[in-house]
Amino acid sequence: MNRKGLAILMRTRMKPPTGTIAANDANLSHMKVEKQPFQQVISDETSSFHDSQPSTSQERNVKLVHESMREAITMNKSEVIDTILSDFSRGYYSLSHENRHQAVLVLAREYDLDRKKIRELMQQYLGLELPPGDVSQMSSTEGESSLSTFYRTERSLRQALKPMYGVLFERLNKHPGGLKFLCVLRADVLSILSKENISSLRALDSYLKENLMTWLSPATLELHQITWDDSASFLEKIVAYEAVHPISNLVDLKRRLGVGRRCFGYLHPAIPGEPLIFIEVALLKNIAQTIQEVLWDNPPIRESEATCALFYSISATQPGLAGINLGKFLIKRVIELVKKDMPHISTFATLSPIPGYLQWLLSKLASQSKLVNLKAAEMVHLSNETVGSTFREDLLRPEEEKAILSLAVDGKSAMDVMLNLLTSSNFEWAQSVNMLEALQFPLMRLCARYLCQEKKRGKALDSVGNFHLQNGATIGQLNWMADRSEKGLNQSAGIMVNYIYRLDMIEENAQSYFSTGHIEASPEVCQYLED
Amino acid sequence: MNRKGLAILMRTRMKPPTGTIAANDANLSHMKVEKQPFQQVISDETSSFHDSQPSTSQERNVKLVHESMREAITMNKSEVIDTILSDFSRGYYSLSHENRHQAVLVLAREYDLDRKKIRELMQQYLGLELPPGDVSQMSSTEGESSLSTFYRTERSLRQALKPMYGVLFERLNKHPGGLKFLCVLRADVLSILSKENISSLRALDSYLKENLMTWLSPATLELHQITWDDSASFLEKIVAYEAVHPISNLVDLKRRLGVGRRCFGYLHPAIPGEPLIFIEVALLKNIAQTIQEVLWDNPPIRESEATCALFYSISATQPGLAGINLGKFLIKRVIELVKKDMPHISTFATLSPIPGYLQWLLSKLASQSKLVNLKAAEMVHLSNETVGSTFREDLLRPEEEKAILSLAVDGKSAMDVMLNLLTSSNFEWAQSVNMLEALQFPLMRLCARYLCQEKKRGKALDSVGNFHLQNGATIGQLNWMADRSEKGLNQSAGIMVNYIYRLDMIEENAQSYFSTGHIEASPEVCQYLED
Repeated sequence: MNRKGLAILMRTRMKPPTGTIAANDANLSHMKVEKQPFQQVISDETSSFHDSQPSTSQERNVKLVHESMREAITMNKSEVIDTILSDFSRGYYSLSHENRHQAVLVLAREYDLDRKKIRELMQQYLGLELPPGDVSQMSSTEGESSLSTFYRTERSLRQALKPMYGVLFERLNKHPGGLKFLCVLRADVLSILSKENISSLRALDSYLKENLMTWLSPATLELHQITWDDSASFLEKIVAYEAVHPISNLVDLKRRLGVGRRCFGYLHPAIPGEPLIFIEVALLKNIAQTIQEVLWDNPPIRESEATCALFYSISATQPGLAGINLGKFLIKRVIELVKKDMPHISTFATLSPIPGYLQWLLSKLASQSKLVNLKAAEMVHLSNETVGSTFREDLLRPEEEKAILSLAVDGKSAMDVMLNLLTSSNFEWAQSVNMLEALQFPLMRLCARYLCQEKKRGKALDSVGNFHLQNGATIGQLNWMADRSEKGLNQSAGIMVNYIYRLDMIEENAQSYFSTGHIEASPEVCQYLED
Repeated sequence: MNRKGLAILMRTRMKPPTGTIAANDANLSHMKVEKQPFQQVISDETSSFHDSQPSTSQERNVKLVHESMREAITMNKSEVIDTILSDFSRGYYSLSHENRHQAVLVLAREYDLDRKKIRELMQQYLGLELPPGDVSQMSSTEGESSLSTFYRTERSLRQALKPMYGVLFERLNKHPGGLKFLCVLRADVLSILSKENISSLRALDSYLKENLMTWLSPATLELHQITWDDSASFLEKIVAYEAVHPISNLVDLKRRLGVGRRCFGYLHPAIPGEPLIFIEVALLKNIAQTIQEVLWDNPPIRESEATCALFYSISATQPGLAGINLGKFLIKRVIELVKKDMPHISTFATLSPIPGYLQWLLSKLASQSKLVNLKAAEMVHLSNETVGSTFREDLLRPEEEKAILSLAVDGKSAMDVMLNLLTSSNFEWAQSVNMLEALQFPLMRLCARYLCQEKKRGKALDSVGNFHLQNGATIGQLNWMADRSEKGLNQSAGIMVNYIYRLDMIEENAQSYFSTGHIEASPEVCQYLED
């Protein structure tokens, strides 16, 4: 990097700005896009506009946006479209939170479908007589001629069922900077939807998402190895978007791009200068069991001695691409690349957070301890097994209960004690040898259960788990006190998990997870599940 | 280029292989894709297969293709899809002409729509009651809730109206090599359609074309300057695909990439190693008036002295992209780039063929000379102005008639003489000073009329003309004996035309051509049109 680049980088914030979203090593659909919806774009286009504008200029921009939006949709194709689209997107970027909200709603409501026309076409279509029998079996001329009216009307119907805003999306996709704009637009849409369920906007979102999915074909994405030689403006984005394990300073960033480390990003040709998603890799002798050893392991081992490529962070940069799984393709391509470059590496694994574990456990503990505290008399009126829809179950084993009860003297149940400890604000339990000893086994055991058995619509409940399992990974090993950061303790009581990618098993695992929901786990993890 | 690269290049055919298609500086929709439909792919994938295979292996491949086609469409998404798509595309490449034909027809007929389901959804939709009045005017909750069923059913209808082969196309678009395969597939489809109008296949084609148009967004295409440093395998494609002015040998190729020349191609990230379209540019002191001076001007002038960038050839490489105008975006971007790099260049122009001129003229001459030859007696029964749908008009002016009649003594009309001369096989007229003198003015005058006034559905009849006019160019100048090659004499009696791109006029011209069909021409050309 040249001097100027470095100087620019030095001025960079070393914490992700609020509103920057990371996939948390997770399926993008679980990203918290609802927060700070309008500041996630860190491009120059927006930053200059966000300072409060005089209201007259803002009003002018609102008019400009609505006018150019109408033109961009209704104007017949011509050279002028590019100018209109530039006006529209620049104007939109300049709008306040509320005015963007309004513009998006107008788009969803006033530019959807011509329902009268659809009805007319349908009447017409239903009036057509279906050719008898199986068309494909007919002689070609006979079948063909009777169907040609069908094809024509079906095409018109397809056209009529395309919302008018679909025209805007397609034109933006062709326009320089338009794809990025569509990402920003969708982030705004998702932000509104997270607060209010508006069906017209829901319909627009699902339409836009489908479009983005085909436009962001993985065959179009370029795999780029991010190095210290990349431009400062590019590296600045890496710092800003990395939110799994925030980059604390320049030395930290340099280390993550240096010897024994790799960083790869997916770039789309229409969105130059920033990756859509990137992954950080550590080359190690063995699968790491704590994130501390990955981030602070100093000095790194020689690359020729490495046998394991550990994916320790994957961050998506575009909240507007929520629900579009680019990480899957990225991991596959990175594995192929590393395998080719370094044949001595035979293990591909992650060291992943378990973002939903503690939330799940705390709610379980709360509901079960309520059941336990019910007096025997009240229990009589209830079925032996259930209270409301909650089953009574023994979350803790007798020996675990005993050990936990020994930690407190207030006479409550073991589950109560556990609940109190885990929700104490200063993480007292994580500092005390006694408490750690009493809590370790039940926390690890229940974590194994959470990862391997808790599901939602047939898929793993944990979003990161679901992400890696659908990519064909196996649950490899649970690691105690693997992330002692506040975030780590809050999410998963400090536990982290290794997902293992075995190239010869990826297809089979993904297939069986997809069709039957089967979760493949190592014998070590399965042991926790035995009674 | 390294030695190996050069060695490979030396073995290259220096003529485009049959079946390779060039846009002829033209709108791609006019490409002659019907010829040699299955040999247009010059990639390794196909070439190894085309030698006659034993019929058993061919039969096996047919089975494989049909089976994998079914799976690729019906299989639920999973890791296995990639394998199936590879099987399918490799199998398809290996098929004979006839078997590809069959496979494409099966795709169009058996994997289109579930019409029963469509009808059911339509009945359901028509049963819904339209909310009264203008939805956008309603209070949000009221309007929204009454519409949510509409949105849901409309989405299902959109899904149901998507042909099953649409799934295959989308999956191929995501698959490495899939976009290229779709181009080949569409070329095959167009080839079949050029011989037989099959409505199911026509419907498939229009669906595929729409998809390709959004997947090949110009924002995704990379502008690449093609130089002598490109790989031999890449340059080999340039030689093969250039069909406007064929590249005759290595020296010719090197000159077209050397001093005073530029060559730019559009690459798509999913189709690496070959441009989708490329343009050749000569840097000149003035607008060239003959192609000879561009191709054989030796040595080139100093680039710093150039004031004109002349586009002398534009070739599209994918017959399967017919009707998708990539050239327009390419020209615009090349102009921007050249202008930025070389501010001393102020004129951007083409030296273009007029592919349809002679064909139009000959048919005019034939029908008019028939009219003239009718005896006066027969004319009595006909309207004074028309015979059938053909108007009687004076194609030639009296002084032109006189000059032409002086060339022959057979007593026929001047139009007859002209017709005979122009259709004589050995281009006698182009060798004779007398004939050239007599023919020059009427040929130039009628050419101006052809370019400026002859239209089809409101657009210029000439395909190349229509291409440049819709891009916003002006007709600049007609050049006599500008292309003396056999092809040039056959197409346009050797006349070529300069289209001029004036940056400040491009938008206005395109807009007015689009909305009113107005063709902007220089005063020199307009003079020919005055009586």
